[in-house]
Amino acid sequence: MAKGLPKRSEDFSKWYNELVGMADLAENSGVRGCMVIKPYGYAIWEKMQAQLDKRFKETGHQNAYFPLFVPKSLFEAEEKNAEGFAKECAVVTHYRLKTDPNDPAKLVVDPSAKLEEELIVRPTSEAIIWNTYKGWIQSYRDLPILINQWANVVRWEMRTRLFLRTAEFLWQEGHTAHATKQEALDETAKMLDVYAEFTEDFMAMPVIKGYKTENERFAGADETYCIEALMQDGKALQAGTSHFLGQNFAKAFDVKFTSKEGKQEYVWATSWGVSTRLMGALIMTHSDDKGLVLPPNLAPNQVVIVPIYKSDEQLEEISEVVKTLMSDLKSKGVSVKFDNRTTYRPGAKFAQHELQGVPVRLAIGPKDLENGTVELARRDTFTKEVVNMDAIVDKVVGLMTEIQNDLHQKALNFRDNHITEVETFEEFKDVLETKTGFISAHWDGTPETEDKIKELTKATIRCIPMNNKQEDGKCVFTGNPSKQRVLFAKAY
Amino acid sequence: MAKGLPKRSEDFSKWYNELVGMADLAENSGVRGCMVIKPYGYAIWEKMQAQLDKRFKETGHQNAYFPLFVPKSLFEAEEKNAEGFAKECAVVTHYRLKTDPNDPAKLVVDPSAKLEEELIVRPTSEAIIWNTYKGWIQSYRDLPILINQWANVVRWEMRTRLFLRTAEFLWQEGHTAHATKQEALDETAKMLDVYAEFTEDFMAMPVIKGYKTENERFAGADETYCIEALMQDGKALQAGTSHFLGQNFAKAFDVKFTSKEGKQEYVWATSWGVSTRLMGALIMTHSDDKGLVLPPNLAPNQVVIVPIYKSDEQLEEISEVVKTLMSDLKSKGVSVKFDNRTTYRPGAKFAQHELQGVPVRLAIGPKDLENGTVELARRDTFTKEVVNMDAIVDKVVGLMTEIQNDLHQKALNFRDNHITEVETFEEFKDVLETKTGFISAHWDGTPETEDKIKELTKATIRCIPMNNKQEDGKCVFTGNPSKQRVLFAKAY
Repeated sequence: MAKGLPKRSEDFSKWYNELVGMADLAENSGVRGCMVIKPYGYAIWEKMQAQLDKRFKETGHQNAYFPLFVPKSLFEAEEKNAEGFAKECAVVTHYRLKTDPNDPAKLVVDPSAKLEEELIVRPTSEAIIWNTYKGWIQSYRDLPILINQWANVVRWEMRTRLFLRTAEFLWQEGHTAHATKQEALDETAKMLDVYAEFTEDFMAMPVIKGYKTENERFAGADETYCIEALMQDGKALQAGTSHFLGQNFAKAFDVKFTSKEGKQEYVWATSWGVSTRLMGALIMTHSDDKGLVLPPNLAPNQVVIVPIYKSDEQLEEISEVVKTLMSDLKSKGVSVKFDNRTTYRPGAKFAQHELQGVPVRLAIGPKDLENGTVELARRDTFTKEVVNMDAIVDKVVGLMTEIQNDLHQKALNFRDNHITEVETFEEFKDVLETKTGFISAHWDGTPETEDKIKELTKATIRCIPMNNKQEDGKCVFTGNPSKQRVLFAKAY
Repeated sequence: MAKGLPKRSEDFSKWYNELVGMADLAENSGVRGCMVIKPYGYAIWEKMQAQLDKRFKETGHQNAYFPLFVPKSLFEAEEKNAEGFAKECAVVTHYRLKTDPNDPAKLVVDPSAKLEEELIVRPTSEAIIWNTYKGWIQSYRDLPILINQWANVVRWEMRTRLFLRTAEFLWQEGHTAHATKQEALDETAKMLDVYAEFTEDFMAMPVIKGYKTENERFAGADETYCIEALMQDGKALQAGTSHFLGQNFAKAFDVKFTSKEGKQEYVWATSWGVSTRLMGALIMTHSDDKGLVLPPNLAPNQVVIVPIYKSDEQLEEISEVVKTLMSDLKSKGVSVKFDNRTTYRPGAKFAQHELQGVPVRLAIGPKDLENGTVELARRDTFTKEVVNMDAIVDKVVGLMTEIQNDLHQKALNFRDNHITEVETFEEFKDVLETKTGFISAHWDGTPETEDKIKELTKATIRCIPMNNKQEDGKCVFTGNPSKQRVLFAKAY
């Protein structure tokens, strides 16, 4: 089954695309740039959703739902935001089809059903939400508003890749309103922490927290905070962003409140989001040439049990033992699947579960029954061992934590080994092409320099790390004075 | 706070609209026909979702996600389905905006970004899903496919009402593929049962299971099964449908499989869905002139505790007691909120929780502290009693079941009292206008008679009840022979 999966070292991009298909995560659809998320892929996304949702609620947020469509007049209200998304908008212009006068089996757009005002399919929801908040906010007593939405959004991307860049994607978007600037800044930082803790603890994916430069900021934000991860091909991936929107949307939609002191003031805003892009990040962080590797926290099945048998009788005996084992594992919170399909041989099952990244595989055959043992195989390390049946539950439970931690540590080592400080632009280009990864370099702080470096190398400033060490230096490109290093990389 | 809520008996429709707004469930948005589901409303919907999702998974279904857009050529493939939805479709024709040449602060649709093929915003997903299933199904080994999707859909309704009929709504749609007709029929029936059990047990809303007549069938279905509920104004509401799609979509999208016997056969299909419309059904089944009434299973807060105090010291003492009480209630699985806002007086809090349908309200004042008591008020019956603190947890836990059952029984009595057998068309019209509710009458089985009755009375056949008693009779309208009674009603 794993036949045909290219090696990462030979063609990382092809490896990724084929892995997504072969592991049954997603596929391209009949609609340009839109994907179908298949049940196995969706089950992983559901685990991400459930965990994030829990963390949002623990930090005081509530879910709500706002319209899919944004009328053009609302869309254009916040100028920078509108400008940032105008070039990639799906636009609804009509609300009816009619029978094609030339072919009764076909339908055509009914020209008499043209909308007076076009509707934009939301690329993000600040406009529609701030237009709504206007009605909800009169006094400081109505603040803060702490709302999250799980939704689909559409950005008309020309070059798409499953999970990483699709015309339609699933995400959550938090939109909060505050009485003071400081409270909004605190919220922006808090939600970045929520994202960072989630990616580190749950996805076993190390991230660097930082600030975006002006060039890379969200359209309409005063400040964008981000978490940046590093993929195995040495390219960076922006895994989540949290925006301090200042009073930009409050001003665009005229949202004022009466303060405790009785003054009319504009409301302060944040927004923050992560998307199905995290699925791509997960895959490119941990997987290997054999297929998907999943941290136990996100595995739809943490354990799979494969029976090895020649007769129905043997299968029955094995099933008896498995029944108890499964109930013991489940009672310890381990999700487990008994792969007793009779239409596939053990070898094919092994290959499939390897490809789909099931963290632990147990195999039980007649000899195991005799000896009271189980064969245990770890997906991440490929190590196998024979374990006594009475020790297997504890062993597996322990492995759930161990594998989770090992994957994190491995990714952390890789990431840390791929942050390289450089002093010259020659070095910069050399590291970018040969070693790859993050390049820590001095930068003179101007968008022009950033643009030129991007033009010459395709590398962008991924972030100015939080709590960055302040040191005097010279810009790697212009030689102008600089106070700190920033992180450059080629990025997804 | 409940000031201004009209009486149900005076203007049911106005009562509904104002209740939805005043209880903070939803509101109209700046987009024609699209609603904003507010946090309190969304919290109820989340409880419905979680429970349904659990029941879908228990019956072997997996979630997945398919594109929002349906290319026109796919949309028109299944002729009846296309015909049924063509007149209410939002159509995307362009993928870019540009600056208005006449006003740089405005945006206009960029005519150079016209799509070659228009995209329909999904009104339902059979077309896009069966176009996908075509690639997934080759052999009987690939069947059944049991998939559900949680999604937003758009149907361009001219007259909209919050939750009941909106241009965009949230729903789940199950789409299954089977090797045999019988298996597909069994699935259709099984999912109707899942819906009926959910509405009865969880929403405390009685439903009648039945079949739709040809007139009322889903466009593209061979058979539509439904659950019909009765609202307090005597109008019926279709609460869920499960469709046996025969081989219609398999034929439209050429989806065949190789059977065990090696023959090429078309695949059999079902689809089934419930939507945010259930929120409307919930409201109109249980609520009263004071506001929302919620069955405990769906209440975001099952219990609210209001402190009655004059000094900060008293509030502190009460808070101490409440802390223990809350932890005891939570440990028994009861969700509870301590409403210790200092910006509102107890009376205002009582009114708000009444309006929002919190099933049980506890009030604790200084006298209660002295006496070791709590005042308990039931939302559904308005009964109040003073309960000893050491008995309160058991009392509340018991009430959760009691209120849930009482609401169901009350709604059941109302529904059963509003099924009236009639023999003549005079009686039919009289009952419809005065008593209202379901009318059980003989019908000659023709669409023409159904149409005429609808034209004359606005009543439609809600369903032919399952396991209907077979009896000889005469059609209430034509006098032609009939073998069974069917249920007529005016409906939402």
